[in-house]
Amino acid sequence: MKILILGIDGYLGWSLANYFAKEDCSIFGIDGFFRRKWVKEMGSISAMPISSMKNRIKAYQTTYKKDIHFYKGDITNYDFLCSKIKEIKPDVIVHFAQCPSAPYSMMNQAKSVWVQKNNLIGTLNLIYAVKEYAPDAHIIKLGTMGEYGTPNIDIPEGFFEIEYKGRKDTLPFPRQANSWYHLSKVHDSNNLQFACRNFGLRCTDIMQGVVFGIPDYPSHAADRKLCTRLDFDQAFGTVINRFCCEAIISHAITVYGDGTQIRSFLPLKDSMQCVKLVIQNPPSKREYKVINQFANTHSINELASIVAGVCKLLDMEVKIAKMKNPRKETEKHYYNPDNQNLKNLGYAPSNRFEDEIMELIQSIKPFKKRIFEYSNMLNPTITW
Amino acid sequence: MKILILGIDGYLGWSLANYFAKEDCSIFGIDGFFRRKWVKEMGSISAMPISSMKNRIKAYQTTYKKDIHFYKGDITNYDFLCSKIKEIKPDVIVHFAQCPSAPYSMMNQAKSVWVQKNNLIGTLNLIYAVKEYAPDAHIIKLGTMGEYGTPNIDIPEGFFEIEYKGRKDTLPFPRQANSWYHLSKVHDSNNLQFACRNFGLRCTDIMQGVVFGIPDYPSHAADRKLCTRLDFDQAFGTVINRFCCEAIISHAITVYGDGTQIRSFLPLKDSMQCVKLVIQNPPSKREYKVINQFANTHSINELASIVAGVCKLLDMEVKIAKMKNPRKETEKHYYNPDNQNLKNLGYAPSNRFEDEIMELIQSIKPFKKRIFEYSNMLNPTITW
Repeated sequence: MKILILGIDGYLGWSLANYFAKEDCSIFGIDGFFRRKWVKEMGSISAMPISSMKNRIKAYQTTYKKDIHFYKGDITNYDFLCSKIKEIKPDVIVHFAQCPSAPYSMMNQAKSVWVQKNNLIGTLNLIYAVKEYAPDAHIIKLGTMGEYGTPNIDIPEGFFEIEYKGRKDTLPFPRQANSWYHLSKVHDSNNLQFACRNFGLRCTDIMQGVVFGIPDYPSHAADRKLCTRLDFDQAFGTVINRFCCEAIISHAITVYGDGTQIRSFLPLKDSMQCVKLVIQNPPSKREYKVINQFANTHSINELASIVAGVCKLLDMEVKIAKMKNPRKETEKHYYNPDNQNLKNLGYAPSNRFEDEIMELIQSIKPFKKRIFEYSNMLNPTITW
Repeated sequence: MKILILGIDGYLGWSLANYFAKEDCSIFGIDGFFRRKWVKEMGSISAMPISSMKNRIKAYQTTYKKDIHFYKGDITNYDFLCSKIKEIKPDVIVHFAQCPSAPYSMMNQAKSVWVQKNNLIGTLNLIYAVKEYAPDAHIIKLGTMGEYGTPNIDIPEGFFEIEYKGRKDTLPFPRQANSWYHLSKVHDSNNLQFACRNFGLRCTDIMQGVVFGIPDYPSHAADRKLCTRLDFDQAFGTVINRFCCEAIISHAITVYGDGTQIRSFLPLKDSMQCVKLVIQNPPSKREYKVINQFANTHSINELASIVAGVCKLLDMEVKIAKMKNPRKETEKHYYNPDNQNLKNLGYAPSNRFEDEIMELIQSIKPFKKRIFEYSNMLNPTITW
């Protein structure tokens, strides 16, 4: 089986390449190194140092006795993407090659346009390249639970049967995203749904919760060149990773607003497990399948308490501080998303939530100085 | 009151400029003349000859003793758009400046990307320019009834209250568009909804039915330089206009597929009346209001019969011919859209449907030779 990972250099992409190292498959990867540029642009760095792709691949070959077929390039360049899809003829394409940051997209007009254009065109190009050169390939597209917003009813997996004025239909669940980035994912969901229906493609669209933690490939600790990145800046650091970095440098854990906002979460390891399950269960031709991919839902206050609790076990003193919410978002709300499709595929959390957080804290502790040096990057100066 | 019409050179834009000539308002217009380029690119022309913008404005000034403040430019250029919004400080912005063709967007990958990028960026730029320089302006955005697709339940105006698993919420009605063009309008609807909620803008999003016919400004016939365009080619000719052009050149009226597809329709005159009503009833700050703007729903078979019936009254012999549907679309389906919001504003059809069609046929009859010369353009060679 040939698996092509778009965005193989990123937090999820590089972890996935390692996760599949021992599987019976060939790994192909494309990346334009945008994530490295964006984080640099924010003035920040990865908490754990990461190697160049060249060194990553060398370490990968040494460790696993397996190749990664890597191509540097930008998928918004259609000719480039086509030439690779034509050459590789992948069975599975995991599409992580997008700008994943709400704050980055909300900085100003130029960023808003750039993020939506970048994400939209990449996916449109992928749709056409697959249609032309690999029409049977299974597209696995990374969406986000943030597409749904926080409706006052349960959140199903992509579609729901409703009765309205005495008639019934199964329709896409309405999306109410709260940033240009999240909206770009909504646009993609709509485009992909049409592409499956009209061009006969097959796609699993993963609505993923907020991912945190470190990967579990055994070599992660063995050869540091195989480390995945871990961001903590205001734009690319997701909430739990950010909390843990704060705790390590004895910075207060900063809760935005009253902290009653509830979100879905998933350890990085489980994200890898889920992608594997999705690959093993491809949709039919013309099918656009949606999976809500998360382990738990928690309020931000709960997360802060969990992180503080783990710190206590490690004899780390940590405070929790509330700050003015830099974002306009509903803080007190109903939240009950379904993830039965995911469970039906066989997903089970691989670890206790607290243990994941402990492992994360212990893994990044050696980089305390490095994080401290960039601690200004934790401040949410981007508001909307 | 200062009204800025984006896309003032188009079918709707130019008609609106004339419709408002006698109103107590100043008219500003922006256009990049894309529509002229697209139709030329398709190898076609407007059924009625149209003047250059320079001559249009001269004739406008002579006829109405009123100015049009016109700026040539592309709204995907943010600096250009900003400078104009800053200078004009419009009270109302009518946004028609988009590529409006499903077939054009479905030609190939390059067109798909171009249409979505063009439409998306124009609207994002408008959102930011209004936020910065005219935050109280009423944005009137042209959407399409095609955004909804053909669900098996009634179609409300943008939002609906639903009960799901014992809980209730009012949510955006799910969109299921069937071309990259229609999807670009869905993306815009989602972006604008967020812009109102987050930036405090005010917007009326018009889900308009398929428009047909000619405008009713008295000078339309008086000074030919004031004529609006009327397209009949496969990409930019809407169905009734195309049927009438076919009838005039004794070409069979071509129904795609079995003709049972039902759509919403609106005479051009009524479209102008509706925009006026929308201007008179602005939404509050932060409000994103949706209006389904159409007069009637008809199956394509019914339309063909109505056009044939009108032709008979005019002693024109015309046949109806079915052809293989060039598009994948559901042909037999439920269709019951609501337009109560529009009626509540005071909308009433200004004419009988058949009379509109008769007027259209009589207006374009003098251009029979011209249409005949380009009759190849009627063939639907773009399929999807």
